[in-house]
Amino acid sequence: MSALTPSIILVEPQLAENVGMAARAMMNCGLCDMRLVNPREDHTSAKAVAASSNAEEILYNAKVYASTEEAIADLQWVAATTARHRDQTKAVLSAEFAAHEAAQKLQNNIRCGLMFGPERTGLNNRDICLADAIINIPLNPKHCSLNLSQAVLLVGYEFYKTQKDLGKEEFVTNHTTPAEKAKILKFCSYLESLLEDCGNFRVGEKREKMVINLRNIFTRGQLTEQELNTLYGVINHLRGTPRPVKRPEA
Amino acid sequence: MSALTPSIILVEPQLAENVGMAARAMMNCGLCDMRLVNPREDHTSAKAVAASSNAEEILYNAKVYASTEEAIADLQWVAATTARHRDQTKAVLSAEFAAHEAAQKLQNNIRCGLMFGPERTGLNNRDICLADAIINIPLNPKHCSLNLSQAVLLVGYEFYKTQKDLGKEEFVTNHTTPAEKAKILKFCSYLESLLEDCGNFRVGEKREKMVINLRNIFTRGQLTEQELNTLYGVINHLRGTPRPVKRPEA
Repeated sequence: MSALTPSIILVEPQLAENVGMAARAMMNCGLCDMRLVNPREDHTSAKAVAASSNAEEILYNAKVYASTEEAIADLQWVAATTARHRDQTKAVLSAEFAAHEAAQKLQNNIRCGLMFGPERTGLNNRDICLADAIINIPLNPKHCSLNLSQAVLLVGYEFYKTQKDLGKEEFVTNHTTPAEKAKILKFCSYLESLLEDCGNFRVGEKREKMVINLRNIFTRGQLTEQELNTLYGVINHLRGTPRPVKRPEA
Repeated sequence: MSALTPSIILVEPQLAENVGMAARAMMNCGLCDMRLVNPREDHTSAKAVAASSNAEEILYNAKVYASTEEAIADLQWVAATTARHRDQTKAVLSAEFAAHEAAQKLQNNIRCGLMFGPERTGLNNRDICLADAIINIPLNPKHCSLNLSQAVLLVGYEFYKTQKDLGKEEFVTNHTTPAEKAKILKFCSYLESLLEDCGNFRVGEKREKMVINLRNIFTRGQLTEQELNTLYGVINHLRGTPRPVKRPEA
């Protein structure tokens, strides 16, 4: 796993709590290799562990370095997150694009890292010039300051999506299976037969319109068989039939 | 703006600080309409305002409701975020897909809302059954618990990306323009001419290989003219030439 996920490099993080929350965000996104450059506080303190919310494993395994250069020494591609515009001549990637870049490189066994600066100031230019690219997280330009763990979360989330191809997922229906059309139409016919006595059902043209409306209503929702049974029960109840309503054969 | 962004509905949030952080995440993502169902603490307290990090406007404008039903009364499409699997028969959308759904509906003036549950328990089934769809944020299934503001941030971020179409952005080069190829090749030729005396340059075959290597090195990085000048200066210095090196005409 380690070889196929990017390292997360936190440069001079100030608060242990933020390092803990960053570990939680890493765990959320299936990342495991945390590297700390000169952390101001102890990243294995009780505060940090509590903030990590069961991701303390990442904190205990984190490696500490005296300089950014040492922290990235064994990596082959590094991207630096910044909120502000920088005047450095370097490709600026959206978080999504950077995640895809990293994922592709990792698949080719190129070791990648994602770098985050101190809470208050972000990365300085000396750190940024060590990176191959700058990551810019697309956010409201009038209010784009994120806390450290949120920046880690957003970039990590984009990476996680590349691994699972889940972002593109359209939708799945939950457990249950939509009823076969025949069963839905049988239900509609049944309902229509019960409406024969209703005023609107007596005039041919109006009847046609109402039938179409009703069928639209009951087909749109992808009803399950269970839900059809519920609807039969409702009708039964509304009609004041105490015994099970006689349903059409499915 | 308000009509074209989804409302964020926080159901029974427990801590004012979390509501403040959710406001900050909303502001990050260009969202403005916060709705609170039975918040346990005062969402305009000093704690909440501090946590909002300059997004207190959202807190002051937040509307408070006694029930989820009232909070979503005027909306036309609502999606509920859940971490756990639910047995409800409802479409489950990825955050990205849900954001696109909401963006499309909002463009057709359909009022949309995104619903988030209390910190400890998440939304209960009674709230979820009010929603048109469930949002599932794709995250490490072994560790998918997020704090409230992070859930708001991830879903809001996906919505923001639909508005800006920034997610797909490939890359932009920062301010400066890459040098014209002719200038880079002239630099290479110049360097090659300086290497004529070097051992490897004397053997034809080896020379060819080295030229290709060098040209690859200097074309890959999209050097700017300014950077070429720097390189000329470096060569100048290395050769121990105190006066400006005579460069080839560009």
